[in-house]
Amino acid sequence: MIIVMQEDATEIQIQMITEKVKKLGYDIHADRGVNRTVLGIIGDTSQLDMRNLEVEEGVAEVLRVTEPYKLASRAFHHKDTIIRIGSVEIGGEEVVVAAGPCAVENEEQISQIAETVAKAGAKVLRGGAFKPRTSPYTFQGLGEKGLKLLQSAARQNGLLCVSEVMEGGLVGMVSEYVDILQVGARNMQNFPLLKEVGKAKKPVLLKRGLSATIEELLMAAEYVISTGNPNVILCERGIRTFETYTRNTMDISAMPVVKKRSHLPIIADPSHGTGKRDMVAPMARAAVAAGADGLIIEVHNQPEKALSDGSQSLYPNQFAALMEELKMIAWAIGRKIGSVDKPNPTLIA
Amino acid sequence: MIIVMQEDATEIQIQMITEKVKKLGYDIHADRGVNRTVLGIIGDTSQLDMRNLEVEEGVAEVLRVTEPYKLASRAFHHKDTIIRIGSVEIGGEEVVVAAGPCAVENEEQISQIAETVAKAGAKVLRGGAFKPRTSPYTFQGLGEKGLKLLQSAARQNGLLCVSEVMEGGLVGMVSEYVDILQVGARNMQNFPLLKEVGKAKKPVLLKRGLSATIEELLMAAEYVISTGNPNVILCERGIRTFETYTRNTMDISAMPVVKKRSHLPIIADPSHGTGKRDMVAPMARAAVAAGADGLIIEVHNQPEKALSDGSQSLYPNQFAALMEELKMIAWAIGRKIGSVDKPNPTLIA
Amino acid sequence: MIIVMQEDATEIQIQMITEKVKKLGYDIHADRGVNRTVLGIIGDTSQLDMRNLEVEEGVAEVLRVTEPYKLASRAFHHKDTIIRIGSVEIGGEEVVVAAGPCAVENEEQISQIAETVAKAGAKVLRGGAFKPRTSPYTFQGLGEKGLKLLQSAARQNGLLCVSEVMEGGLVGMVSEYVDILQVGARNMQNFPLLKEVGKAKKPVLLKRGLSATIEELLMAAEYVISTGNPNVILCERGIRTFETYTRNTMDISAMPVVKKRSHLPIIADPSHGTGKRDMVAPMARAAVAAGADGLIIEVHNQPEKALSDGSQSLYPNQFAALMEELKMIAWAIGRKIGSVDKPNPTLIA
Amino acid sequence: MIIVMQEDATEIQIQMITEKVKKLGYDIHADRGVNRTVLGIIGDTSQLDMRNLEVEEGVAEVLRVTEPYKLASRAFHHKDTIIRIGSVEIGGEEVVVAAGPCAVENEEQISQIAETVAKAGAKVLRGGAFKPRTSPYTFQGLGEKGLKLLQSAARQNGLLCVSEVMEGGLVGMVSEYVDILQVGARNMQNFPLLKEVGKAKKPVLLKRGLSATIEELLMAAEYVISTGNPNVILCERGIRTFETYTRNTMDISAMPVVKKRSHLPIIADPSHGTGKRDMVAPMARAAVAAGADGLIIEVHNQPEKALSDGSQSLYPNQFAALMEELKMIAWAIGRKIGSVDKPNPTLIA
Repeated sequence: MIIVMQEDATEIQIQMITEKVKKLGYDIHADRGVNRTVLGIIGDTSQLDMRNLEVEEGVAEVLRVTEPYKLASRAFHHKDTIIRIGSVEIGGEEVVVAAGPCAVENEEQISQIAETVAKAGAKVLRGGAFKPRTSPYTFQGLGEKGLKLLQSAARQNGLLCVSEVMEGGLVGMVSEYVDILQVGARNMQNFPLLKEVGKAKKPVLLKRGLSATIEELLMAAEYVISTGNPNVILCERGIRTFETYTRNTMDISAMPVVKKRSHLPIIADPSHGTGKRDMVAPMARAAVAAGADGLIIEVHNQPEKALSDGSQSLYPNQFAALMEELKMIAWAIGRKIGSVDKPNPTLIA
Repeated sequence: MIIVMQEDATEIQIQMITEKVKKLGYDIHADRGVNRTVLGIIGDTSQLDMRNLEVEEGVAEVLRVTEPYKLASRAFHHKDTIIRIGSVEIGGEEVVVAAGPCAVENEEQISQIAETVAKAGAKVLRGGAFKPRTSPYTFQGLGEKGLKLLQSAARQNGLLCVSEVMEGGLVGMVSEYVDILQVGARNMQNFPLLKEVGKAKKPVLLKRGLSATIEELLMAAEYVISTGNPNVILCERGIRTFETYTRNTMDISAMPVVKKRSHLPIIADPSHGTGKRDMVAPMARAAVAAGADGLIIEVHNQPEKALSDGSQSLYPNQFAALMEELKMIAWAIGRKIGSVDKPNPTLIA
Repeated sequence: MIIVMQEDATEIQIQMITEKVKKLGYDIHADRGVNRTVLGIIGDTSQLDMRNLEVEEGVAEVLRVTEPYKLASRAFHHKDTIIRIGSVEIGGEEVVVAAGPCAVENEEQISQIAETVAKAGAKVLRGGAFKPRTSPYTFQGLGEKGLKLLQSAARQNGLLCVSEVMEGGLVGMVSEYVDILQVGARNMQNFPLLKEVGKAKKPVLLKRGLSATIEELLMAAEYVISTGNPNVILCERGIRTFETYTRNTMDISAMPVVKKRSHLPIIADPSHGTGKRDMVAPMARAAVAAGADGLIIEVHNQPEKALSDGSQSLYPNQFAALMEELKMIAWAIGRKIGSVDKPNPTLIA
Repeated sequence: MIIVMQEDATEIQIQMITEKVKKLGYDIHADRGVNRTVLGIIGDTSQLDMRNLEVEEGVAEVLRVTEPYKLASRAFHHKDTIIRIGSVEIGGEEVVVAAGPCAVENEEQISQIAETVAKAGAKVLRGGAFKPRTSPYTFQGLGEKGLKLLQSAARQNGLLCVSEVMEGGLVGMVSEYVDILQVGARNMQNFPLLKEVGKAKKPVLLKRGLSATIEELLMAAEYVISTGNPNVILCERGIRTFETYTRNTMDISAMPVVKKRSHLPIIADPSHGTGKRDMVAPMARAAVAAGADGLIIEVHNQPEKALSDGSQSLYPNQFAALMEELKMIAWAIGRKIGSVDKPNPTLIA
């Protein structure tokens, strides 16, 4: 951490801030320039609130020179983290696709969709059992029954499964059914929940909050890892901006930024990221082209009858066509989707 | 809800969407203009996902003409809600000030601060016992012990007290100590928590999320009210924007907007809204001038030694001077702070 | 335009607003529902300021049902606009790439770069002669001399050229040298300039402002088209958000959104959209995958010595490698770059 | 400027970056810590593009320790700038109010409004003659004729006058009529225009762009001052955020931030900052309470018939009532509006 003093800072002010930093247990080094003095704090400053220094007399600015996260940082862990679940590797050469309905509605629905997405090349079945809804008056999910149906449909089709957990107290129960625990965007900074999934034995899919910076997303991952669970998959799903023609603005640049700052895998959710069916395919292609390690996509056998998010769910045939395009794009950048060695251009819609 | 058809929508498309809406249980009325047809849906559409209609063939746009919240809306409850706790009324003529440290640290600290803020005219003592911290490596609060100290210091100084609850499972325990349950900005859409505080017997101070629209804040209030607790106090505490010279951008216009849309009281938190001590007073004054029903302000007896947020905490004498300015401003707009009938201009710094 | 009355609006209020709208020259139709009355305004409301109606007594909300632009709207012009300049078609099957330095610095520099980018498959040479710089103390461009060098280098390599014009008074002069007139992001709502390029005979590359909505971008295009110039190419180059790890957030979803709302071609500028060299390639790939009609990319023969924006300029070999990846991605979605019929995977880095 | 090297940066990388900086004409000082080396660049780095250093091998981050502006910075000019025009002082003890219609429409309109606002205590008459309109189909202003009417109405009522200039070529003509030249939000980074008003002899009212940071606003002021005109008045008028219940989010915190960073006066425009009449008064009060040096407010004698922005214009009696409230608030914080020594509380509505 670096403290930049004001040009007219007095010697006494420099001494006082030096004393204060030393009392906090850090060494400090003064660099006296022609115009101003710059103080460098030596030691692990990750627990130091820089704003406590900014308000001192004579201080112009306080700058952090190290990231506030360690375990999630590529600086401390150079190699890509690859998360292995059964035969699936997330963060490796393959771009892994999770797909399924917004919410599990009944056995027939989830079974049909599972079969469909497995056939098209998905490796993971998604489906909500506990739904965070902005309105208290809308469908809230089937609960544990939904998890059972999800797990069963996944197993029958050779898929892994992922579902959201919204409360710390339910992490144990949800873990019994799913292969990956999802923490939703609205809970990205629900710290008690982060600690609970940090104690779980299952990998965690951590969604970026609607107004979270990438640094905060990595800090949230740090909570999970520091509690004991290193298997965190990050997920971009759109941020809030002033644009109104889209529900959110999907931050595709999060792919290369996260890859540079962290060793953790990052996937994209173009369904929530756009909120509209006709934009899911272009944004899914964009995410893969930008380097996403995976995608999570809403697919429904009858979107027009879906109990939630039907408007952003793909039809089965749309999903299958998209998968063929994605295979080509992955191949163009030296990756692959599924076991195919070479994409088949004749299958592209 | 209104469905605007495309200019070239066919009669069949209009029929199909009409059928779909009727099947969902609503009446529908077609208004055939020269250029295009507009369909009006009649009935309570608060549970209807408008995006399910937007994706239909021939539809140009779907517009909501009623707000998605009812119990929090002024349209359904014209008179201002006034929340009475002991002798304090929130939402009435008086602008109520809550003040205290970011976190309860020890008995001496909270007692001293309680005495200080009571003397200056505060009516509520704030103090965190469970702290949501972005870094897992920083001070997380004293827990229940902190709540005991907070309550005791408040009682000794004739103050009410407020503290944050972060988990549904702790609502009962926290309710035993505090007069007002605070739901933090990061938990504004933690729906299980909203339902728990909705069952509590204590009023709820609900903070606006960093990227929440005012509509979403009112929807979150709707969760609490619809579960059974009508005593919700809204709180503006800064939103995310591109500006970097301030930590957040405090949305002062939330005061008049909420007053127009809802009957619930709204207060402002200039400490979190700005993040810097020297901006707390101007923004506190601005909030009151814009019509805030109250303020919540961080005050510490020794900000430079505070375990958290010291940089945004006022010194006792700063708080006392601010209160005198605020009394004048409240008076200028026909309200009051404390029992004084007329402000004393000679006390203004 | 639709006027939604408040639930408790009186008959007199409804009459008064009806009279007001009629006086403005529109027909109006009242739809009296169980709970509230909705008034539909019939006629061309593009010149009507809806806020003048919002403030009337008894009005709950005013909703626009048609876009405020016409000439730029797909609703009024279903077929894609294809802009033909020489043998190049922008908006057609081919994804057209413009490349070159941020600023023209001298003859050797621009000649070398022109040769390099032409060889790699670019069709247009970019290069600034008048630079809008946020600091008054930095390099401001070579002016007309720069345009001469740009044109000459382009011609020698069979390329078109594009350069920015910052003032209405210079449109004539700049038009003599360039094939495409660029209007920069900071001038997207410089209306006198929009009118001047509207009178020019050359196509216009119109960049989206940093905080402009897509609707405003299309309104700016409307200015140009309505003045007489239908050849407008839109360009996404990043918007302002709260994220700080990137300079701007490139809104990749602008590609499918513009394609749906407008018939005009849209291209992407990943150099300004990201501000950092190592993010240019992933975002260029993402834009093409999402449906961009073209790209404009900064390439410099010696980026480390560039007088401006060197940090976001690609090295020649990086640009060549990127072009090969882009050819594959274009092919994956049924488009092409350059005259190649089929990409050559062995050329991909 | 400070260059933070990566933890694993090699000695050769440190040498190479050191050489590069020296070649650019700066001294450099290396601070070798336990974990990493930090390089300090000595000299005036305002012309140095830090991104050119960020992309070098081994560099983790580049941090600016001085502001990129000088002439606008309080660090280089400690005392508040007070701009004197006739008997009016902007930036001093008095809070100066400018008021008038969005656009000058005809002689009767501007004369009536001038008389009204003068009587209520305004010192400056505002009125547009050249209007920047987002739609090419709406009223664009009376041009020079409007300026004549504006000047005449101002003179007859003892007021100064201000109007917007949109093109460099018109600065001379507009200067003949107005006392203050306004540069609109959309032109905040129209650099040719900034240079022209920098050469003018009249003070400049510079509005913050919709997505401009405060730093960029101060950089724009730097353009004007460095060209020769030190009399710049800054103006906050709302920024773009995700909130949709207001047209823009008025950044009230810009008042204290600008006061800290710069010596220039800052005023607020609550009419454009909110876009709705019923929010103008609360936000005007908030701005004054937060320390604004002035206000610019739209007032119209018949807002419902205004040719532009009628919905955000105050009625004459609303403006008069607001002025009485503002006098009280100014007094509460040790300032004044008009020549009154003490506000008269009985006048407050």
